[in-house]
This record gives sequence, structure tokens and C-alpha cells, in this order.
Amino acid sequence: MNKSNLTLLTDFYEITMSGGYFETGRADEIAYFDLFFRRVPDGGGFAIMAGLEQAIDYLSNLSFTDEDIAYLRGRGGFSDAFLEYLKNFAFRCDVWAVPEGTPIFPGEPIMTVRGPLLQAQYIETMLLLLINHQSLIATKANRIVRAGGGKPVMEFGTRRAHGASAAVLGARAAFIGGCVGTACTVADRDLGITALGTMAHSWVQAFPSEYEAFKAYAQLYPDSCTLLVDTYSVLKSGVPNAIRVFKELASAKPAIRIDSGDIAYLTKKARDMLDAAGFPECKIVVSNSLDEWLIRDIMLQGARIDSFGVGERLITASSDPVFGGVYKMSGIEKDGVVDPKMKLSENVEKITNPGFKKVYRLYDKDSGRMVADVITLASEDAPAGDDYSIFDPSFTWKRKNLSNFVAKELQVKVFESGHLVYGSPGVDDIRAYCLTQIDTLWDETLRFENPQPYYIDLSQQLWELRSALIEKYQAG
Amino acid sequence: MNKSNLTLLTDFYEITMSGGYFETGRADEIAYFDLFFRRVPDGGGFAIMAGLEQAIDYLSNLSFTDEDIAYLRGRGGFSDAFLEYLKNFAFRCDVWAVPEGTPIFPGEPIMTVRGPLLQAQYIETMLLLLINHQSLIATKANRIVRAGGGKPVMEFGTRRAHGASAAVLGARAAFIGGCVGTACTVADRDLGITALGTMAHSWVQAFPSEYEAFKAYAQLYPDSCTLLVDTYSVLKSGVPNAIRVFKELASAKPAIRIDSGDIAYLTKKARDMLDAAGFPECKIVVSNSLDEWLIRDIMLQGARIDSFGVGERLITASSDPVFGGVYKMSGIEKDGVVDPKMKLSENVEKITNPGFKKVYRLYDKDSGRMVADVITLASEDAPAGDDYSIFDPSFTWKRKNLSNFVAKELQVKVFESGHLVYGSPGVDDIRAYCLTQIDTLWDETLRFENPQPYYIDLSQQLWELRSALIEKYQAG
Repeated sequence: MNKSNLTLLTDFYEITMSGGYFETGRADEIAYFDLFFRRVPDGGGFAIMAGLEQAIDYLSNLSFTDEDIAYLRGRGGFSDAFLEYLKNFAFRCDVWAVPEGTPIFPGEPIMTVRGPLLQAQYIETMLLLLINHQSLIATKANRIVRAGGGKPVMEFGTRRAHGASAAVLGARAAFIGGCVGTACTVADRDLGITALGTMAHSWVQAFPSEYEAFKAYAQLYPDSCTLLVDTYSVLKSGVPNAIRVFKELASAKPAIRIDSGDIAYLTKKARDMLDAAGFPECKIVVSNSLDEWLIRDIMLQGARIDSFGVGERLITASSDPVFGGVYKMSGIEKDGVVDPKMKLSENVEKITNPGFKKVYRLYDKDSGRMVADVITLASEDAPAGDDYSIFDPSFTWKRKNLSNFVAKELQVKVFESGHLVYGSPGVDDIRAYCLTQIDTLWDETLRFENPQPYYIDLSQQLWELRSALIEKYQAG
Repeated sequence: MNKSNLTLLTDFYEITMSGGYFETGRADEIAYFDLFFRRVPDGGGFAIMAGLEQAIDYLSNLSFTDEDIAYLRGRGGFSDAFLEYLKNFAFRCDVWAVPEGTPIFPGEPIMTVRGPLLQAQYIETMLLLLINHQSLIATKANRIVRAGGGKPVMEFGTRRAHGASAAVLGARAAFIGGCVGTACTVADRDLGITALGTMAHSWVQAFPSEYEAFKAYAQLYPDSCTLLVDTYSVLKSGVPNAIRVFKELASAKPAIRIDSGDIAYLTKKARDMLDAAGFPECKIVVSNSLDEWLIRDIMLQGARIDSFGVGERLITASSDPVFGGVYKMSGIEKDGVVDPKMKLSENVEKITNPGFKKVYRLYDKDSGRMVADVITLASEDAPAGDDYSIFDPSFTWKRKNLSNFVAKELQVKVFESGHLVYGSPGVDDIRAYCLTQIDTLWDETLRFENPQPYYIDLSQQLWELRSALIEKYQAG
């Protein structure tokens, strides 16, 4: 799959709708869409924005090839005029987005698109796919990294990823979320995320004995000498053979990896053996279907671990593998004025926020911590003052007056009339930014289970608009 | 990502091990590896093999570009001679595999690779990634399709897929597992899997009224006129407006889609309204975070549904998103004789089967149903006779004598000394083959919960070899 082909990587209904907007003369009406999500995976207190750089690549490369047009013509039902429009497609939308690595919360727009209805509609599927995937993995990785309590976590999941891009971009997202590296070589070559790896059980099996396998490896790669000690028996053969090799090759930088069995028990025993043999500096790496709960549990049992390799449960976010981002129309511009739109639903949580909006994050001036996010209409002033009132949009009697805060606009402008006006930071900078931003969250939000919900409130104006529209729709 | 780049889409340890085999003079020793899985996702009774066509593409295109070599040289630690070897890499392995669409069971080799140790090792990561991903989705799709009880299921998950290839190849795997089509346009264009789709809520919102939105759509696309009726209120506005449009446009092929709310209740009410209005032929499509359990539950409540659109829970296999295929060395050839290898483990279920093996599927001659799979050494004759004894490899007193069966070898040869000798069937044929093969399973194996485990037995010779090796390793 090359870049140009991604233009047709979309739900077919984006094409039928685009055709419909074109044929009914609405293609160039100016529409507003918000991308947001409704629920943090794993019941967590926050998610992490990721995937924007790939979304920018996608939008920058949108174009229909002759083959794409021929394919659509062959499908039937599309007029020549519409296909001609697609052939000359040039992206002209304004796009705002929350920078990658930012903690994000349910209900707030993390991307906003303003532009010709046909175009703003067409890009829905791929924006969702890219943002959903990487935000899911970055969020999961951060949970796992926090469980590790400062010990390095490597992403090891390529073989269990859902396809090639899940492996490579999953490694990227995991790095943003706090992993120190990956096993995925392409992620190293193309994205600059350090890839490491030493041996599989097959290396040990390929030699007449475990000792010979270790020795050969240590001679070849003394600087990266993590010996896998569980092919036969960790304590009876693996650790003793590793110690023998470390003694014979003083130059080797010693480490062992345990990939099966009772990790808590085995690491404690292995630590004792390594220390007694004079290798207190030997690192112990573990990897065996780990996730944040298992890591926390193992550490509570006093396991002696220096770093973690986390595979399948990270790269698939296995405990909750769906990041439910959605993309909803919030308005259509008529003569320069936004006609706000919303979706009602039998499911209350599926009701959307109307209008062209902005999101502000309010930080307490003294502690530097996040206090609340406030969604306003774009035409409103930023939240300010020493007595700013926020309230729960569902339970409006839940009010709080804020003072001593600074409000920071959460989204930045990415495209202006289709022209890229934003430079994505490098992935190291995104990762560093992410970790500093997470430091501004309260412990109550960071909790794995039953975190305190963070305040995501609507401005009075937006709340009134929303209430008025609900009433209007219900009146029929 | 283009095809040539996939060569470096591998765990870094495949490269360090390859370098190690090269430097120790073992690169061209002939090794045997088995790809197998240990557990059916969701506690199901069987899985479905998928992903082989993409694995074949990968193996057919293995080559290291000058950029790949330059990247590896820049990493350091690899000799010029090794990098020269990679530059001239030409795949020379024999590969056997179970054809796509075949029901597969834990512990049996679904791929077997024989060839130069370096090469057979190097391809591990990518074979696992491709087979794990598609087998996962095909298996999940088949559960969902069976829950639908013959009503068509469409794959609608692109926006929640874990990246671009998860969307496209997930659509392929879902089709193999029994879905009738997809929303993913690229899967239609490139893989021939019918993509369909009509409208999102934004289409309805973009018009001054729901009625006008429906009317405009039905005029444009009378042959594919599935109106989304839940933007405001299914029963108060959506279904009445759809009926009004169907009445005004007799040419439209009527259908409605409900994407939220109480599906069982709403479909029954909508059915009544449509029937009363003279549209008994109007189809009802539903789509809202469905999976096999919800579909079964909704149908038990008497919901009136004609077809299902299943998205996030299918494309991510959300209830159990890891297909745990592994790739383990089973032998090294010395002077034409296979020296069998196995991996012991503290986790008993991680012990592997040694030697160069074949798998036979035994079908009852009268019923045509599958009776058992038997893994033998490749040198043995196929299971035959009227009194063939099979036994549980862990509980050997569990024995059964079989008669009146035919044994069919499960794997076919795919590569012979690196040359492709197999033509992948078209995806329609794979799907048809899959559905006929599933018809040869017993109801007890098809059960969603607590299926009866299918017999996967070892031949007497293989069992004896395995037991002898365990004893040998334990003796140290």
C-alpha cells in the first residue's frame, strides 16, 4: 500500500455521500466537524492524543489517481461530473488539532475541521482510523509504563500486531506514551525509535548446549548481551550457564531475560544467584504476556526486575482494544454565520455539542496542575477572571468558581485553507512533552481504577445553545 | 510502506541472531521451524487459518535494499561479510502451510519451514504477524456470522482498525470467515471484497430536514437506498420520514438502518410500522457495537433484523484480540538426518513438539465429519487401517480406536527451495471452502461456550520421541 492509495482507504459511504453532496449542489457549503471520543479505555482517567503526524501526511497527500477514478466509474452510480471533481480534488479545509502527547478527555474536540462539506466529510474514516489507533496504544503504553514505576518498558509486540502498520505505528504510539524503545526494526529505521533485541529460544536450541549458545552470543555482541535463560530451566541451567559465560568474558555487559514461569519467584532467585556470583550489575529483563495489572502485581510481590518487555497486551491494547473516536457534524455556515447542528440519540451519551467551538485547559497558577477543560463557542472570549464559574453540563447544580488560573487553548491550527501551517515535533519531543503534561494531572486522575472524573465543562453560551437545540428537535 | 520495506519489518533480534548464525558458520545449516498456536481466542472450539496469501507475498519479495544495508551498517555490530550476505539474500526455504479457510486447532503446525537456519529464523516475525492477524479476524468473524444464523453480516470496522493494513486485511479475513462484504473501499478495489455503504448521520444533518435528506438520497441512489433513521428519533421521525420517501419514490429499493438505542425494541416497532405502511419488503439493517453475544441476545428477544453491520468488535476482535501463534525450532539437519529440538518450559503448555512433522485430519467416511487430527513424524506413513489407535498426549490412558476414516494431509507445499509452487485461490473460493469445512465440524465443537475439545493427538512414534527428549533435557 503506498501513500496515494490511502485516498480510497475510506468507508464506501463517504463516497456515496460525497457524490450526493456534489449532485445536490452542496459540495462547497462550508461545514464544521468535530473529532472526539466518548470513553477512556480501561476505565482510565485520561487518554493521550497520538496519530496527528500521520493524519497530516494523509491530508497532505489526498488525491485520486486515474486508477481510483476508473475504479469508481466501474462501480457505477457516480456521474462523470462528480468523478471529474474528484480527479481535480485539492484539499481546502481548515484543520485544528490537539498536539500529540497531550492528555485528552471524553467529549472535547481533539480535532476540528472546517471546509467544503464534501471534503470535510470525505476525510472522516481515515482521520478516525489514524487518531483512534495511535491514541489507543499511547494511552495503554502510558498505563503500563506508570505501572513499571520508572523502570524502562520496551515495546515487543510486532508479531501480535494487527498488521504491518499496527506494528510500526503502534511502536511509535507506545514510545509517545513512555516506552523507551521497541523490537520493531522498521520503527527504528523510519521513525527513529530505538529498536533492540538479542535472542529467541531458537538461538539456544540451535547450539549443542545452552552454554555454547550463550558463549557464542556474548563473544559476538558483548555490548548487548541479554541472555535468554528459560529455554530449559531458568534456575537449574539458564542462570548458571549465564554466570559461567559472564565470568569467562569479563568484557560482556551482563543481562538476562526470563520469558516464562513464575516471574516473581524466578527473578528473586536469579537475583540472589547473580549477586552471589559477583554480578550485582547484571540486569534482569522480563517478558511474558505482561500488562499494567501483572506488572503491578509482580512488583508488589517483591520481584527483582530492571526492565520490562511488553508485547501482545500493549500492541493490541488487549484489555480494551477499541478507542471510540467519532467525527460529527457541528455546523453548516450560511452567509458567514454558523448554523449549529447536533445529533440527538436514544443513547444520551451519543448527543453531540453543536457549533464551532474551542477548548481551553485551565491550569492552577500555583501548583501548575490542570483544573478543568472548558468547551466554548469559538466566538467567546477565553475563560478568565478571578471568579469564573464552571458547571457540569448534565447536573447543572454542580458548580464551582475558579480563580487564580491560566487558560490555554488546547487545539492548534494545522491546515489553513488546505495549506499545512504546522510542523510536527520530533517523536522524542512529543514523548517528553507527554510525560511533562502527565505530571500536571492530579493523582486522583492518574489512578488505574475508579479515577476521579476530570472536569470537562461547557461555557454558559454553549450550554444554552445545546439546550435550545434539544428543545427545538424534540418539538419536531 | 512499500513491499520492499517489509523485509526489515521484523524484530531486531532476528537480525542479531542472523548475524550470529552467520559469524559462527551456521547460517546454512538446515533447520526446521513450526508455526502453531496454543489457544483458540474467546474459548472457542477452533480457529480459521488466514493470511497465507500475504505471507507468500512477503516471502516472494524478501530482499534487502541498499538503504536497508546502509541502515544496518549504521547500527553497528554487523560485519561487512554478513551485510554482503544480506545484500545477496535469496530465499531458499521449503515451506508447507495449511490452506486459508481451513479450521485449525491448538498445537498443530499450521506452517512448517525447512531451510538455511539464518533464513528460516529471519522470517519468524513477519510470518507470525500476518498469520496471527488474519486468523484472529477470520475466527472472530465466523463466530459473529454464526450468531447471525444465516442473516448477512457486513464488516464495518475500518475507523476502529489498528492502522491501515488492519482495516484492509481485516476486511479480507472477515470475508473469509463468512462476512458478505465490507465498508472498506480499498478492500473492494484491491481484493475484490464488495464494499457497500450509504449515509452517516452527517448526511441527515446537512439538510434542512430529515425528510429532505432521505428524499435527496433516494432520488440519487434508488438501488442502494438504506436510510439511516436514528439521527433524531427512530420511531417519531426516522421511520415515518423513510416511509414517506418510499411512498413518493416507488422506484427506490427500501431499507433502513438503526445505529443506536434499544435494537430489539426499535426493530420490532419499525417492522410493524413498515409493514402497516405497505413495505413488508423493506430491509432492516442494524449496527451498534455488535458482537456474537449481542447478536444472539437480540435475536432471542425477537428482534426483526435482516442484516447486520459489525464494526469495532469484529475488526479488533475486541473480546480477545490476541492470536497467540508462535514459531519454534523443531530440528536441525545433520548429514541428512534430523536432530530433533524442543523447548522445555516451566509452563507445561509451552513445551513444543520435536522433529519434522506432518499433520493429518481424519474424516469419518460415513458422516464426512472431522474425527481427529494426528501429528506424526514426516517419515511415518499416514494414519490408516480399521483399528487405528489415537490417544491424548498428556493423559495417555485416554485412548480411542478409529475405523472407517480417511486421512487427509493438512499442509500443502508452498515453496520448494525458495520457489513458489502454490497458487493461492481467490478470496471467494477461500470463503466457500471455509464454510464447507466448518460444516464438517460437530455441533459440540461449534458451540460458543465450553466447546468439546477436538482431538489433536500425536502418533506413537512422535510421542515417544518427545518423552525421550524431555527425559534427556531433565537429566541435564
